[in-house]
Formats: sequence, C-alpha cells, structure tokens
Amino acid sequence: MSDFRQQALDYHALPFPGKISIELTTSAETSKDLALAYSPGVAEPVRAIAENPEDVYKYTAKGNMVAVISNGTAILGLGNLGPLASKPVMEGKALLFKRFAGLDSIDIEVKHRTTQDFINTVASIADTFGGINLEDIKAPECFEIEQALIERCDVPVFHDDQHGTAIVTAAGLLNALEVQGKNIAEAQIVCMGAGAAAIACMELLIKCGAQREHIYMLDSKGVIHTRRDDLNQYKQLFANNTDKRTLTDVITGADIFIGVSGPNLFSPENLSLMAPNPIVFACSNPDPEIKPELALATRDDLIMATGRSDYPNQVNNVLCFPFIFRGALDVRASAINDEMKLAAVEAIRTLAKEPVSEAVMQAAGVDKLQFGSDYIIPKPMDPRLCSRVAKAVAEAAVRSGVARIELPKNYMQE
Amino acid sequence: MSDFRQQALDYHALPFPGKISIELTTSAETSKDLALAYSPGVAEPVRAIAENPEDVYKYTAKGNMVAVISNGTAILGLGNLGPLASKPVMEGKALLFKRFAGLDSIDIEVKHRTTQDFINTVASIADTFGGINLEDIKAPECFEIEQALIERCDVPVFHDDQHGTAIVTAAGLLNALEVQGKNIAEAQIVCMGAGAAAIACMELLIKCGAQREHIYMLDSKGVIHTRRDDLNQYKQLFANNTDKRTLTDVITGADIFIGVSGPNLFSPENLSLMAPNPIVFACSNPDPEIKPELALATRDDLIMATGRSDYPNQVNNVLCFPFIFRGALDVRASAINDEMKLAAVEAIRTLAKEPVSEAVMQAAGVDKLQFGSDYIIPKPMDPRLCSRVAKAVAEAAVRSGVARIELPKNYMQE
Repeated sequence: MSDFRQQALDYHALPFPGKISIELTTSAETSKDLALAYSPGVAEPVRAIAENPEDVYKYTAKGNMVAVISNGTAILGLGNLGPLASKPVMEGKALLFKRFAGLDSIDIEVKHRTTQDFINTVASIADTFGGINLEDIKAPECFEIEQALIERCDVPVFHDDQHGTAIVTAAGLLNALEVQGKNIAEAQIVCMGAGAAAIACMELLIKCGAQREHIYMLDSKGVIHTRRDDLNQYKQLFANNTDKRTLTDVITGADIFIGVSGPNLFSPENLSLMAPNPIVFACSNPDPEIKPELALATRDDLIMATGRSDYPNQVNNVLCFPFIFRGALDVRASAINDEMKLAAVEAIRTLAKEPVSEAVMQAAGVDKLQFGSDYIIPKPMDPRLCSRVAKAVAEAAVRSGVARIELPKNYMQE
Repeated sequence: MSDFRQQALDYHALPFPGKISIELTTSAETSKDLALAYSPGVAEPVRAIAENPEDVYKYTAKGNMVAVISNGTAILGLGNLGPLASKPVMEGKALLFKRFAGLDSIDIEVKHRTTQDFINTVASIADTFGGINLEDIKAPECFEIEQALIERCDVPVFHDDQHGTAIVTAAGLLNALEVQGKNIAEAQIVCMGAGAAAIACMELLIKCGAQREHIYMLDSKGVIHTRRDDLNQYKQLFANNTDKRTLTDVITGADIFIGVSGPNLFSPENLSLMAPNPIVFACSNPDPEIKPELALATRDDLIMATGRSDYPNQVNNVLCFPFIFRGALDVRASAINDEMKLAAVEAIRTLAKEPVSEAVMQAAGVDKLQFGSDYIIPKPMDPRLCSRVAKAVAEAAVRSGVARIELPKNYMQE
C-alpha cells in the first residue's frame, strides 16, 4: 500500500475512529446544570416550541445544523458501494462544513429499497436540521429525489454534487471566458458526461447566459441529439437538433470543453480541433479527461481547470457548499433558489480578481496568485470566501423572498 | 415567569441556541489534512468498508455514536406535542450521554403518519449509528415500534422510557426489599399506571423474581383483571384473575406501591392500608403520586422513592442509559438483552451498598450517604457508575453471545 493510502487510513482511525464528535455548548457539571438541561428545566423550551414552532431556532441547535445525507449509490468516482461505505465521505463533508463555515453537521446514511422510500425517510427527519445536503446519490434518481424533497421539506435541500459543482464551474468558466475575451452567449460548449453534475452545470450555465442550442452533451453512446430514443427526461432537455454524432464532430471549433466523465477520454487530437483560445475543464477525479501537462503542451492558448489540488484552477465544491448553507441558514431561507446560486457564482468569481494574502499563497504552495489563465478560481484556504459567499447568498435569499428573518446586523463584516 | 423557568430558557438560548455542537477529532488545517479527510484520501476507508463492513467501526464515528430518536408523542409528562417540540429533550439526552459516558449522541425527530412509517424511517437510518435510543414515544405504539426495530436493526435498540426506568426501579426496589427484610417472590405489588414504564417495570421485576399473580396493575379504569374486555395486548399480560376492583381493594396488605401515573393519586389513607414495612415508589414527575413529607408523616416504617432530585432515593434513568449503551457499544453488542439489563440492575444496586466519596455527597447536597432507607439508589454524580454499569453490561453481552468483539483489555478499570 502506498504511503499516502496508509496515511489516509491512519488519519481516519486515529486518535479515535472517524472525524467528528459531539460536544456540549452548555455547562453540564452541577446538579443545577442538569436540572436546567434536562428534567424539569427542559420542559420550558418544549412548551415554548409547542406554542411557537419558530422558537426551535432559539432553544435548540437546529438553526446551525446541516444533515449530510447519502444512500451511497454514487460514492466519489467509486460507484454504488452502499450506504455504509459512504460514511467516511459524509463525515468528511461534515468536517468541511465545520472547518470552513462553522456549521455543525452530521452524516446520515440511508438504506432503502425504492427511491420513494429514500424520499420518505429524509422528509420524515428533515425538521431535525436547519438544512439538508444530499450527497453521492446517483443520476437520474438524484433529480427526482431533490425535487421531491424541496417540495416536502421546510428547510433548504441542496444536492451538492449537482449544484455545488455547477456553481464553482460557472464561476471559473465565466472568469476563463473573460480572460480569453469570449462571450458566454456565443460560446460553443461541449459537455462530456450526462450525469448529475453535467446536467446541473449546463442548466446553470444557461442561467448565466449560455445558449442551450450551443451545448453539445455526450453520454457513453455519443452526442445527445433529438433523434435518440434512449434518453431519460433529464438528458432530453439537452437533446441537440444536430447531425453531429461524435466527440470529433462537436469539438471542432468549440470554445469550451467540460468533462465530468472519466479519465483520459479527451485526447490531444480532440483539443487541437477546438477554436482559438479554448477553455478545458477536465474535472474527472482523481484522473482528469486530459492531463494538464499534455493539454498545455498541445496548445499554449488554453485555459485549463481540473478537480485536482495539485494543479492551478481547481474546481472544488468546498468553495461553495459550506458558504451557501451558511448564508441560507443565517436568514432561515426556506430554499436555495437560483438567485442564491447565481449570487454565489458572482461572489466566487469576483474574489478571484482580488489580491491574495501571503498566507493563502503559502497554503496553496505557490509564489503568485494573480487573476489570469492560472488563477481563475479562488483557493479553498482563502479566508474571505465565507464572508463573501455567505453574505451574497443571504442577501439574495432576502431579495428573492425565501428568507424568514432579516439579515443579521453587520452580517459577515470582514 | 418564575426565576427557574427563565433560567431554563436562558440555559437553552445561550451562548448558542441548543446544547450540542459538532467538533472535529482530526486536524483540518492544512491542504494535506483536507486531502486525507476528503478527496482523494477518503476513498481509502470507503474501499476498506466496502470490502469489510466491520471496518466502519475502525474508520468512522459510528461505534461511539448513539441516535436519540423521538416522534414527540409523549414528551416528558407533557403529552403529544409533536416532533419539533421534543427536540430540547432529545438534545438533553444527547448531553447526558456525553456528560456521563463520553458517548457521542445526536437527536433525530421523526414526523410520520403511521407507526409503520416511523419504523421504516428509523430502520432506514439505523446503520449510521452504533445504537438507537428511543425516547418519549407513547404507549402502546412504543412496544410495537421497539420490537420491530430490534428485529430489523443490526445495532442495539433501547426504549429508555421503558427499560431505563425499569432497570433503575428494579435496582432501587431490590435494595428497598433487602432493607425492609422482604422477599420479592412473596411481595404483593401494586402498580398504578399501565403505560410504557409501568409495563416494562413489571416485566423486569418478574425477571428479578416477582410473581405475576402478585402484581395488581391499575389504569384509569381501575384494576386490570381477566374479566375486562377493553385491554390491549400489553395490558392483557397483567390481567389478574381477581375480584378486586379498586385501589383500596388491592393496596390493602400490599408490600410495594409503584406509581408511574400522575400527581397525588395515592392518599395517606391508601398508604395506611399497606402491610408493615411498605415500599412506595411514587415516580410521577415533577409531582409524585404522594408527597414524601406526607407519606413519611403517615408511616414511619416506610421506604420511599420518587423521581425528584430534591428528595432521597431518586429514580433517575441517567443512572442507567448512558452506561448500558457504553457497555453495549464497547463490545459491539447486536442487542441489549435481558442478561444485560439484569447485569445493569445488579451493578446499580451493588454500588448503593458501597461507601460514597465526599465529593458525591457534596454534589448531592447531603452530609451522609449510607445504605439504608434513605439511600437505596446511587447518586447520578457518582463517578463509579460508568465503569461499574458499563463493565457489567459489556460482560453480560459477551457471556450471552450478543457481543461482536471481546471485552477490551483492562476495560473500565477504576
């Protein structure tokens, strides 16, 4: 076993199994403490909440608590390994919520027979939490699940594999277009992959100005076009009325390639067919659709992003999900709507244009971070992300009418 | 509002809403940390668990995590106020798990239409946790729910309102019988109340040697007897083949009165009819079936226990539930069986016979704690409870074949 793999196992096993624990935020030392925390004192907040349900935010941890929920059907790039095996990932997500946004977060792994069972289970327990982050649920079921839960739950529901990926991708892509001097409304886009992330990315890019007819999506059978009869309802939305059938057909003259598919599926020959000043987001993890070294050796007019931390321009969901929930929960948003997603896109892309501190460069292991082809996306360790993104999201929630309370005064002042 | 009630609300609102938070047990500062905690490192424990499900105990927090789950249908003595209003109680229970046994615990409130929905929901999420503590679920549904979940879940399921109460009651009662020089096999027992706690207490007393035909249980309609046709299947088990119909009928000559009913339902006149050296456990909370002052003024040959911390002999579930889960989880018990419950009874009652430290007396606000009529049950602040009860429970789990691992070496050595 490699050194890194052993380190990863040790990291999870020590000092205790796992990565999270429960701690008390109140004193529980004396008999008096316990009389307040439990019987008889606890009857007071119970009565208050029974009378006014919103008091649950005043007297319980609900308002700062996010559930990370999975059924383990699409764990990382490893496939359907079941709920139990997804637990380290979900605890990892909980760790990131706490580390980056100070949100308390607990993982829930759901075993189920049918999609409807899963939906019923999550809807039944949703009120426990301030928000629900769905994770590693395979397509196309994830679309139905998210939609049903949004309708049934009073708290925000967000499938991060879809929207977190889409938001960070859109932020990076809009900046890449700016650097390349291109306009999203005119850009020809090839999307390799037709799963949860692919579909959410394309939908969000359309909301950012991309033209649906300029998008060519490919699944394992090639280009998704209007004459195919094997498409689910989600792929159908991207069925292009075209005679193009192969990657070669669609990549010729394209401005943007987005890969959310698998390793090494995009060749230097494909890349060489793209328009001048192309943009390639090769986000398959850990092995991208094309290696950055190879891509940049093929074309020097390229802007390249991947999902990896060891190359420039990492598309990393952690730039978004902790803060979109932070903002949503801080104004008790009933949902995470398009306005909030677009506000997150804008906040993330704007931050990449601002000067970066030495500490952030050091954490990223680079000497220089200046807006341009090697820096179109902020670094995860940038401490301004929380205040910028959460604030933009919270303001958008208020503006769009889904916030249940006003923005706290001096909210997220840096 | 009274001072105590306001303090209880403040305790829950400050410094943050609620009583619990999530903390990280691993370092999450550097980029390297995050690469181990999340992608790509987290793939290693995922693969390990997919290959060997027991590795979930090695690489995740499951093995130390208890879910406290309620539907809010019987919150404290306040009735059916719904899942949301039960949240402060469930968080309080999580606080007690951490404070007394170092167990991580998270509350889950379940909204459901049918009993079967509730069962399905809990069974679906059960694998997330090392054990399930059911709480504040009304009778008789609680019996069906617990039984179904025990059958469907791989982890121990324990309805504390039933069994926690029963274990502590049995421990106190066996000691009271010893002090009064009585034998449980001969004792005439009156149980006022026929809910979850009452039925579980009586079942456990029978396992401790009480005779079923010596037990008279009363519900709101009087004595439960074989000629009644309004009994659910749980009450039917206690239908006594008797002509006695009223409390007066059954209390005459009785050795033991156990109240799990309501305030002031047991009068001095009732008490005066009991046999010499009677035992009264008036456990209705916060107001007992008879006030200790009144009871002791009526008879000086009495041993009296209540649910209150401000009188001697408090029947308090916290003496049991943190430690029964501690012991069960430490040997990965698949269930909490009768052997383990009886081991907990024995460990708790034995501890009351041992000398108590000054610190425990101080915490209890008394000058003296010596086994006898005013001290038949240990105090919650006795630090030996965890080691004694958890060890007895874990050993019983191993002995009775439900443990999945051996007792850790030097387990719970004081």
